[in-house]
Amino acid sequence: MEYKYAKRMEHIKASEIRELLKLTEKPEVISFAGGLPAPELFPVEEIKAVNDHVLDHHGEQALQYATTEGYKPLREWIAKRMNANLGTSFSDDNIMITHGSQQALDLSGKVFLDEGDVVLCESPTYLAAISAFNAYGCRFVEVETDEEGMIITELEKALKVNPGSKLIYVIPDFQNPTGRTWSLKRRRELADMAAKYQVMVLEDNPYGELRYEGEFLPSVKSFDRVGSVVCTGTFSKVFCPGYRIGWIAGEKEVIRKYVLVKQGVDLQCNTIAQMVIAAYLEKYDIDAHINKIREVYRKRRDVALDAVSRYFPSDIKYTKPEGGLFLWIELGESVNTVDLLEKCLEYDVAFVPGNSFYPNQNKCNTLRINFSNMQEDKITEGIARIGRILRHS
Amino acid sequence: MEYKYAKRMEHIKASEIRELLKLTEKPEVISFAGGLPAPELFPVEEIKAVNDHVLDHHGEQALQYATTEGYKPLREWIAKRMNANLGTSFSDDNIMITHGSQQALDLSGKVFLDEGDVVLCESPTYLAAISAFNAYGCRFVEVETDEEGMIITELEKALKVNPGSKLIYVIPDFQNPTGRTWSLKRRRELADMAAKYQVMVLEDNPYGELRYEGEFLPSVKSFDRVGSVVCTGTFSKVFCPGYRIGWIAGEKEVIRKYVLVKQGVDLQCNTIAQMVIAAYLEKYDIDAHINKIREVYRKRRDVALDAVSRYFPSDIKYTKPEGGLFLWIELGESVNTVDLLEKCLEYDVAFVPGNSFYPNQNKCNTLRINFSNMQEDKITEGIARIGRILRHS
Repeated sequence: MEYKYAKRMEHIKASEIRELLKLTEKPEVISFAGGLPAPELFPVEEIKAVNDHVLDHHGEQALQYATTEGYKPLREWIAKRMNANLGTSFSDDNIMITHGSQQALDLSGKVFLDEGDVVLCESPTYLAAISAFNAYGCRFVEVETDEEGMIITELEKALKVNPGSKLIYVIPDFQNPTGRTWSLKRRRELADMAAKYQVMVLEDNPYGELRYEGEFLPSVKSFDRVGSVVCTGTFSKVFCPGYRIGWIAGEKEVIRKYVLVKQGVDLQCNTIAQMVIAAYLEKYDIDAHINKIREVYRKRRDVALDAVSRYFPSDIKYTKPEGGLFLWIELGESVNTVDLLEKCLEYDVAFVPGNSFYPNQNKCNTLRINFSNMQEDKITEGIARIGRILRHS
Repeated sequence: MEYKYAKRMEHIKASEIRELLKLTEKPEVISFAGGLPAPELFPVEEIKAVNDHVLDHHGEQALQYATTEGYKPLREWIAKRMNANLGTSFSDDNIMITHGSQQALDLSGKVFLDEGDVVLCESPTYLAAISAFNAYGCRFVEVETDEEGMIITELEKALKVNPGSKLIYVIPDFQNPTGRTWSLKRRRELADMAAKYQVMVLEDNPYGELRYEGEFLPSVKSFDRVGSVVCTGTFSKVFCPGYRIGWIAGEKEVIRKYVLVKQGVDLQCNTIAQMVIAAYLEKYDIDAHINKIREVYRKRRDVALDAVSRYFPSDIKYTKPEGGLFLWIELGESVNTVDLLEKCLEYDVAFVPGNSFYPNQNKCNTLRINFSNMQEDKITEGIARIGRILRHS
């Protein structure tokens, strides 16, 4: 049988990098490649307790079909949390639960993107957002980005050159892959630009709660006066990713479209997962839990930064993130980090070459380091190993 | 802000029926409208036990990210089960876990359907499959269907008139909405047609395990010699729907495409849900559990059939399903079942008007009755009530 796939499958290809990174599954490999939270911090005992509670008191409801929008008490909690931390003014009707925030990205593509539509993004940007939007045949326009976020004059240029652009995709807090955080000024300016040019902003915020220093900043959404911003969030980084519970938040009219689309896509999210998380949030102190995570990751970040400064060549540039899971390193122009990865794998250490984070360009001398999922001594050992390989190549 | 949605959103609209059926959420309504399993049969205590076991022994793994393909022991179990019951010859590499079998339908659209592509389907067919495929802008061609399934000469005519048709979508066991089951002969002939015309078949099988009489039949896939059939399955009807765990099964090369698409869509299914189900299947006797479900639903079907024969006008036609969750009723030509539903809602009883199950036609005199989610006395009472309204209108 000669299979006749949809045309979009031409954009959806197995990544060579992903194939290479399969080698990192061996236990002896020190891998900085993933974006995994530290499993030793998962509140396993508490989850057991709330799971039992939910099954004891609401077993039939928890195992049955439920609404597409999601479990109301959980949506209420999310709305309150966002209002308190991000300066929004949401109620539960502004929130739909998604299968991780990755699904929020995919559904955003489904709701907004026709073939050929322009998506403006930071340069570099999140790998799996590129995959999600690519499936809708969009065209990416990368906007130059510095320590404060997208350079707004560059954004406006891009908006003028590409009239009818559909989406501006940004990760203002501890961006993936760079770890950078947008300044307050740029957040406000982005909201203004979106209003002026009538373009939707998708504000992706998986890491915002994981701040290790400095002050929390209000979201881009908090500056939105016309309803042009939708936001994602997730329990993957502050609770655990195994439950696959995230959300999309925005104007009611827009969220209703997401609900219609999700009905056809998968009906609803896991009922018991939503109820277990809601029960956890009611019975336990999630802030205390997040503080514990922050403390551990802050130390790991410091160890990683220290090791990079000690073991990497001195002509490199790297970010010093105030939170999140990643460092971003720019090596000398002549280095190709895909080749470097192949060499590193021979010595059982891995990272993600930066090239994959640029939808259009070939920028071969960057790499991403994840520091959340490894003990401190391993971080030092792994970075020292990459440093040695760099110096000898 | 004037929102510029994707063109596909024109096909994705709120259904009037769904709005009407929101009224059925009041507890006093006897609703035959859903497709819900009976929650009193969910193995709540067993699930509590296996959930605790999984968290005690594999807590960190169960709450962490995992592979897109799904949990290997679960995929192995599914392959073995399908091979034993459905005449397939799968291994775990032929299976990808999906977020309910609804996601298997949506991903099939994403893998195969371009705008304007033809999907051949039974007439009538599953409502939410129409929604899933509609999002890809396909064109439905309904194939005339009788007690034995699609009429194969009609299918061949449709294939000739629509060269390049992409997908034949069928539910051979206890079809939704009619409850009908395809004969062995038609299954074989469908596989032959698919091979001859090089068209993919999507064999949707959410209800196959719920047979109340007669013999189990091999799947269409078991007659597939060219690799043109993919199959769905789900734990929603034999275990519980709240976990949202289903699957897609087919040739390895095709399943690899589904995996690529799922990576961008939502990364993976709920890790702990997969492990809990796998642990349940290892520790408990699912066949004994399914037998319990069969016994209860068989009785409810009998009660429903008996009530229809007693309380409905004598000029109607209705199916006598050998399994599954639904009866299908054809009333006199002059009856409009949407109007009937409105009247019935005044008397606190509901069903789904049949019109929604035809992608192209307006067939207004049919309706679907679900019998799995209600006590026997309520079934009789509800059907008697509809019967009274029918006789007096």
